[in-house]
Amino acid sequence: MYFYKNQFLHKQDIQISPDDRGYYFGDGIYEVFRVYNGQIYECGAHMQRLERTASEVRLSLPHTSDGILTILNKLIQHNSLVEGTVYLQITRGEAPRAHPFPTQAEPILLAYCSEVKRPLASIHNGIQAVTQPDIRWLRCDLKTLNLLPNILAKQTALDHGVQEVVLHRDGTVTECSASNLMMVRDQVLYTHPANHLILHGITRAVVLRLAHALHIPVKEEPFTTEQLLQADEAFITGTTVEITPILQVDGQSIGTGTPGSTTQRLQAEFERTFLK
Amino acid sequence: MYFYKNQFLHKQDIQISPDDRGYYFGDGIYEVFRVYNGQIYECGAHMQRLERTASEVRLSLPHTSDGILTILNKLIQHNSLVEGTVYLQITRGEAPRAHPFPTQAEPILLAYCSEVKRPLASIHNGIQAVTQPDIRWLRCDLKTLNLLPNILAKQTALDHGVQEVVLHRDGTVTECSASNLMMVRDQVLYTHPANHLILHGITRAVVLRLAHALHIPVKEEPFTTEQLLQADEAFITGTTVEITPILQVDGQSIGTGTPGSTTQRLQAEFERTFLK
Repeated sequence: MYFYKNQFLHKQDIQISPDDRGYYFGDGIYEVFRVYNGQIYECGAHMQRLERTASEVRLSLPHTSDGILTILNKLIQHNSLVEGTVYLQITRGEAPRAHPFPTQAEPILLAYCSEVKRPLASIHNGIQAVTQPDIRWLRCDLKTLNLLPNILAKQTALDHGVQEVVLHRDGTVTECSASNLMMVRDQVLYTHPANHLILHGITRAVVLRLAHALHIPVKEEPFTTEQLLQADEAFITGTTVEITPILQVDGQSIGTGTPGSTTQRLQAEFERTFLK
Repeated sequence: MYFYKNQFLHKQDIQISPDDRGYYFGDGIYEVFRVYNGQIYECGAHMQRLERTASEVRLSLPHTSDGILTILNKLIQHNSLVEGTVYLQITRGEAPRAHPFPTQAEPILLAYCSEVKRPLASIHNGIQAVTQPDIRWLRCDLKTLNLLPNILAKQTALDHGVQEVVLHRDGTVTECSASNLMMVRDQVLYTHPANHLILHGITRAVVLRLAHALHIPVKEEPFTTEQLLQADEAFITGTTVEITPILQVDGQSIGTGTPGSTTQRLQAEFERTFLK
C-alpha cells in the first residue's frame, strides 16, 4: 500500500505524470524513516530536517508535520510493519516543463513502507571502502532528489568490490555516499562539522549525543584521508546502516582492522535507544 | 502525442512508475532539440552529446542514434511541428529504490515535441541578469536530470525581476542557468572553456565556428564577474534563446547597454544557418 496524492493506493494504480517536476528535474525532497517495533525512530528530527530542506528549496509541504506523520503511521499500520523503513518524497508538483517555479502546481507526496531487517552482519563484522573525490553540489545538507552523484559514487565502490565510498574534497573527508563518517583517534571522536558539505544525519546526531553521555570527547572538525588511514577506528552512521565499522579504506586497515572498542561501546548504547 | 517505452501515446495515457529511477534520483539524461522548418537543427551534435553523457553516467541508450532520431522525426511529423522543440529524456529504468545500478532494469525513453516560437523580442532587445555563486556539482558538462540547482538559480533571477543569472565560482564566470555566456572585449570574443564546469552547448559551438569564419578572435578562457562588467558586449547562447544580448548585470550596463555590433553580426550569421 502506497500513499500518493492524498490517497492510499496499490503501487500498480499509481500514475505519475511526465509533468511531475520530480521526473524532469529531480525537483523534490525526501526522507527515509527507520521503523523499530512498529514505531518511527527519531521522527521529530526527521520531520525537522524535512521542513528545513523544504524551506531551503522553497517547496511548500502539502500537510503539517502532524498530518504527514499521521499518513506515515497509517502506512505502517496498513502494512503491519514491525521492522523496516518508510520512504517519503515530495515534489514541486505537475506543470509543463519549464525551469521557473510553476505558479499553479500543488506539491505531490509519495510514501510507502518496506520491511527492512537490521544489517547485523555488517554492523558486527564491518565493511570496506574506497576513497573518491566528492564532486557533489555545495548544498549537501539538503536532502533532495538530485542523487545522481551519490549513485555514481556508490556504484564505483561496488565495482571495486567494497561496500562504501569515502568522499573527500581535495583530501578533506566529507562523508560517504549515503551515510556520515566518524573516526576515533587517541580516544577522541572526529567527524566533519554539520555545514553545507554533508547531510546532517539523524543517526550522526544521536551518536554524538551518546558520545557526550559516555564522556567520549567529540571534535566536529574536518580531517584528511591521510588522517583517516592513521585512525584507530572508523565507522559510518545512517538510518539503515546504524553504526557500521569501516575496517579498510583503499585496501589499508584502519587500526587493527577489526571493529574498535569505542565503536562497539557506541553500538551498544545506540541499540539501547530503540531495543525493548 | 508522446513517445514512451517503445510506443506513441497520448500524454494522459502515460503511467510512470514510482520505481522509475528518474523519479527517485533524477537518474537520467536529456536533450532539448530545436526544430526549424520541421527539421531538427544540429541533430548530429545533440546525439553526440547525448551519447557522451550516457557513457559518462554509464546508462545504455535503448536505441541507436538513428533509431532515436527516427522516433523524434516521427513525433515531429505526428504533430506537424514546424517551429519548436523536441524534448527527450532517458532514465535508468524501473527498480525498487536502491542506490546501486539495477541489474535488470531497461532504460526508459520519453520524448515529446512542443510548438515554441523564436524569442525574437529578447533576441533583439536583450535581457538583464544578476550574478550568483555557482554551487552545482563538478560535472556540469553532463546533461542530466539533476537540475534543482539550475531551477533555484533561475528562480532567483526571476525574483530579482531579471531574466537570467550569471553563475560564478569564486568570481570566475562559468555560465548561466541554462545557457552559455560569452563576452566581447576589444573585438575579442571570450567564453569559458568547455571543461567539466559548463555544459558544452551546441549553440555555443555553432557561434564559435561562426566567429572563426568571421575572423573574430576567440579566447576560450575563464573571466571574472569584474571583467564581465567591463566588457563591451555580452550575450548568452542556447538552443531556444539562440544568441540573446545581456544588457545589464547586477544593475550595471554592459558596454553601451544596448545590443553590440559583434553580437548582432553573430546573430545575423546564426540566422543564416537555418533560415531558408
